[in-house]
This record gives sequence, C-alpha cells and structure tokens, in this order.
Amino acid sequence: MTVPTKKKMLRVLAGEKQDVPPVWIMRQAGRYLPEYRALRATAGGFLDLCYNPDFATEVTMQPIRRFGFDAAILFADILLLPQALGMELWFETGEGPRLTPVTTRDDLVKLKGKDDIHAVLSPVYETVKRLSAELPQDVTLIGFAGAPWTVATYMIAGRGTADQGPAREWMYRDPAGFSILIDLITEATIEYLAKQVEAGAEVIKLFDSWAGALGGSCFEDYALKPAVRIAQELKLRFPGLPVIGFPRGAGGGYIKFADTGVFDALAIDTSVPADWARDNLQTKVTVQGNLDPMLLVTGGDALEREVKRLLETLGDGTYIFNLGHGITPQGNPENVEKMLRYIRG
Amino acid sequence: MTVPTKKKMLRVLAGEKQDVPPVWIMRQAGRYLPEYRALRATAGGFLDLCYNPDFATEVTMQPIRRFGFDAAILFADILLLPQALGMELWFETGEGPRLTPVTTRDDLVKLKGKDDIHAVLSPVYETVKRLSAELPQDVTLIGFAGAPWTVATYMIAGRGTADQGPAREWMYRDPAGFSILIDLITEATIEYLAKQVEAGAEVIKLFDSWAGALGGSCFEDYALKPAVRIAQELKLRFPGLPVIGFPRGAGGGYIKFADTGVFDALAIDTSVPADWARDNLQTKVTVQGNLDPMLLVTGGDALEREVKRLLETLGDGTYIFNLGHGITPQGNPENVEKMLRYIRG
Repeated sequence: MTVPTKKKMLRVLAGEKQDVPPVWIMRQAGRYLPEYRALRATAGGFLDLCYNPDFATEVTMQPIRRFGFDAAILFADILLLPQALGMELWFETGEGPRLTPVTTRDDLVKLKGKDDIHAVLSPVYETVKRLSAELPQDVTLIGFAGAPWTVATYMIAGRGTADQGPAREWMYRDPAGFSILIDLITEATIEYLAKQVEAGAEVIKLFDSWAGALGGSCFEDYALKPAVRIAQELKLRFPGLPVIGFPRGAGGGYIKFADTGVFDALAIDTSVPADWARDNLQTKVTVQGNLDPMLLVTGGDALEREVKRLLETLGDGTYIFNLGHGITPQGNPENVEKMLRYIRG
Repeated sequence: MTVPTKKKMLRVLAGEKQDVPPVWIMRQAGRYLPEYRALRATAGGFLDLCYNPDFATEVTMQPIRRFGFDAAILFADILLLPQALGMELWFETGEGPRLTPVTTRDDLVKLKGKDDIHAVLSPVYETVKRLSAELPQDVTLIGFAGAPWTVATYMIAGRGTADQGPAREWMYRDPAGFSILIDLITEATIEYLAKQVEAGAEVIKLFDSWAGALGGSCFEDYALKPAVRIAQELKLRFPGLPVIGFPRGAGGGYIKFADTGVFDALAIDTSVPADWARDNLQTKVTVQGNLDPMLLVTGGDALEREVKRLLETLGDGTYIFNLGHGITPQGNPENVEKMLRYIRG
C-alpha cells in the first residue's frame, strides 16, 4: 500500500517499509534537554507546562528542532484524564504523581461523565492544534492517552506503585465495580483522543505501562478489550487513523494484541527480544522499539552495537525506531545524536 | 518416561504428566503463616533464620505440614551468596536488603573466589541435609540460587532498585569488567548448588527475578548463557538432576530458554499468558506457574475461576501448579486451602 504523503511515519504505519526507518523516542521532550530544563525553570510545575499551550507547544517542538525526529508526541500526561474526571492531581517533588484515590463504588459515583472532561482538557486540544500548524511538513504528530488499566492503577492507589497492588486487589474483590471504572475510563479516553484527532493528531498511541501486571483472564478483560474498544471506535470515527498499542511487559500477550488486527503498530518494551518480535509480531503489524534507554546514558560501543542489531533484525520489515521505555533525565543528547547517525548514516 | 518414584514433582519433571498436578507456592515459608511469624519473633532477624539450621528447617517444614505441598523449597535468600563472596549484607527493617556495593573493578578484586564460599554457607547445606531426612517420602526437596544477573543487580546497587539501573549502566559502560563479575557469580553459584545437591536437594531452581530488565544481546549474554552454563555443569556432575529456570519478565525470551533443551521446567511469571505458554513452552518443557498471588489475598470467585482456567489450559501437559510470584504477607492461609481444594478436588 502506498500513501500519498512524504511523512515516513505515516507511510510505515500504512505498511510501506522504509529503507531508513522513521525514528522518535519516548519522552523526547523532557529533562535530558537543557532547553527543556530552562523553560521548566520559568514555567512552574509540570502540570503548568501541560496545561499551557505556549509552553506545551514549545517543549514538544524542542526535540524536533534539535534532532529532526520523524514524529512529535504531544506533551501531556496520562493523569490529565483522571483530573478531567474530577480527581485532584498534584505532583510531589521527586516522588511523582498523587491523586485523591478512588477506592469504593461511592467514589466512582463522584466522578464526572465522559462528556464532561473537555473543559479541563481544552488547553491540550489547543496545544495539538498549534503543533499541527507549526510542525515541519515531514513530521508526524502523535496524540496519546494512558490505557484504562494503567490509568486505573493510579486512580485506585492515588499514586504510582511497584506492583499495582491496590488495583489488582479491587479487580479481584469486586470485578463489577472495577469494570464500571474501566468502562468509564475507556469511554472518556475515546472522547479525549477523538478531540486530539479533531485538533490535528495524525496517529494515536495508547500507553498501557502496567499491562505486565495483569495475569490470566484479566489481561484480556482489562488490557486487551479496552484497547481494542478504543482503537475500533476511533477508527470508526476517523477512518484510516493509525493506532499504536503499547502493552508494556505483556510478553507473549503481545501476540494477542497483534492478532486482533486492530492495531497498526505495536510498541515493544526493552524486554521483548527483537528476533521474536520480527517472527511473531512484524508479520502482522509495524513494530516500534526497543533500545534500552540506558544506552543513551552510557553511549559507547554498546550503543552502536545494539542500534545496529535492531536495524538488522527489524529493518527488513515495517519498523519504527524507538526506545523500549522513555529516555531518562540522565540521557545524554550527544548519545541521541550518535544514535541518529547510526540509523540515518 | 517413567521414573521409579512416587514423588509427583520428580515424575512431572521427568516428563510424565500427572492427572492432578504437583503444587507448591513460591515463598510458601513466609510471613503469611502465623507459625512463621511466631518463630520469627523468637529467632531474631531474617538472616539469623537463614543461617540457623534448626530454624531454617522448621520454617521450611511449616507449609508442608499445614498444606501438604508436593515440594519443599530450602529456606534461604539469594543474597547469601554475595555475603559468602565477602560482601557485607544486612536487612533494613521494612526496606529490604543492603550490601556494600561493588562498583569498580577494584571492588571485584576484593571478592572471594568460588571455592571460598562454603565456610559461610555450610549452615545452609546442613539445613538441606536435615530437610532431606525429615521430609515426607512423597515431598520433593528443591534447592535454589539467584541467577547471576539478578544477584549482580543487588551487588552493584547495594540494594533492590526499581529498574536495575546501576547494573545496566555498568553492563554497558564496562562489559569486560561486568563479565568478570557475572562469571564469578556463575562459577560460585555452581559450587553453591552442587553442595546443595550433595546435601540432598533433588531439584534446582534458578531465580532470575530481573531477567525482564535485560534488552537486546544482553538478555542472551547475561540471562540465558549463565543459566545454561549453570544447568549444564550441574547436570554433568549430577546426571538426571532436574533444573527449573525462572527468567521472570522475559516474555518472548522464555522461548529462548525452552529452546536450549537444558531446562526440565520453566517457571512462568504472572504476565505470561497460559495459553501462550502451552503452545510455545509446554511442547518442550514442563511449565510451572502462574497464579497471581493477589488471588490468595482476595480469594472469592476470581480465585476459583483463575485456578480452574490454569488447570484447563495447562493440565493436559506436564504441569506444576504454582504462583507467578511469591505469596505476599497479606496472603490468607484459608485461600491457600481453597486453592488446593480446587486443584486436588
């Protein structure tokens, strides 16, 4: 299939292999960049950045200007949606996000409905709109949201947790109540992402960072089904819209995602062997990933070796170069430059 | 193949399917048991328990007496080996293990050699010997060690870490130095496990809790190869010894373990879909796992549903029932009883 665009990212998502794969990196707008840190010092907290279209547009553009990535991803956070659903959200310095937890069915009743989220989220749509106008013509704009399970883990625990224990506990103790929450997030996520597409997002990525915590039938019920529902509904509303799934840590469960036929690409985490992804996923979808972000801290021979290994293993199919996880604040921009040279020659 | 033993666990490891699978659970000797907590209150710290054959034998026996599990696993800790290699080890209450970190090649030189570990570890061998004499005739005794990569992550960071960052960083920055450490742990682990087998351990399990943090060629170099080396050497010294691999979080990498032909069984973590394990692993090895330990906290319909689903999915092949991760202190012994009834009828 050939698509009438010069955007590498859209072409590969349409199934057209590129000699040099498109490349972007997760968290490419972030603290590893001095220009981000400089802006952040003037802009206030992280949430102030997310909700200010001037700032959010600027930080999204920074890595595009510096590195010429093939895709820009909206600068936002997966926890803006729970905030839009009526939860309090704040960030504890050095510790991460905090929310007033949802722990009972009574708490669920207090949440807003799926159509009531846009007042809070409208600055995000404005950012997408500006990015759509400002980005170079060959750069693809990616919108995103957290997948319902991952968003639910934060809503239930009120914070990040090592094992997503509070959400897993509720899921087993009260499947009916838990499903109400998952369904609400699912439907709200559809509305949230639809607005992003209307504002100019060309690709949608769904981040299920904690999919690997779901065992047995729960993986299908709470990771796979909500992701399929969101992707299918968006594709119904926006025919041809590419959707990237990212069920991080899903292991063999990645095959279940590929087999749905709903996702145009799957982002693989660092633990997924590239040759396994080539043989089991790339036959069905475009594969995106999965360099260890630590290599952008260390650089050295290992960086060149692993970049080349990925290109050799996945480069004969439809492939988007990326990391297996977000770049860390310790990432060195010079190593990002090196990575790009190894990819682009 | 039929083995002349009435031990279910050994029969299934020899490839002989059991109508009712053998069952044991990771961390079955632990804080969820009131009799463990009572003994612990008199015995001192966790390490005191590990190094005292009276206590260690008793806590290993506790879950066998209470539940009649098909296997007992030596009560010990994967960090006893670094301690035997000369590192200081202590446990911070409520926080977990601490070691004086190994961060340079100079630190490596200070470690003891592989044959100098037995003075520290001899109480562990004594525990194995006593267990071998005391266990009921139908109960299999499992010895174990941490896999080199996982042990190295603690030795390098001096503690548990969320992302094994310090070890990954050293691995990339100084592969030659890092390999010296991995090789030392590998060879010491062989000697440690050989002594366990000589003392009466009938099966060896190798715990690579952080295998999922290894990407690219590092998974093969630092998870797969050391595990294969250990298993092969042990099988050379003790022909017929069954070895269980547990590359937790390895996803598609589990297939690489199965394909070596060296492991008699693979323990699958909670994230591994049972049907995928049946189709991709159980055709080559016995599969052990992988109920979510949270179900032993919550019980309820979900416990019965997920136990039955595992039996239906994996019960037609060689299968050992277990959890996907260790039982937590919040696990309810009554739910363990229920689990056993669902399995044994």
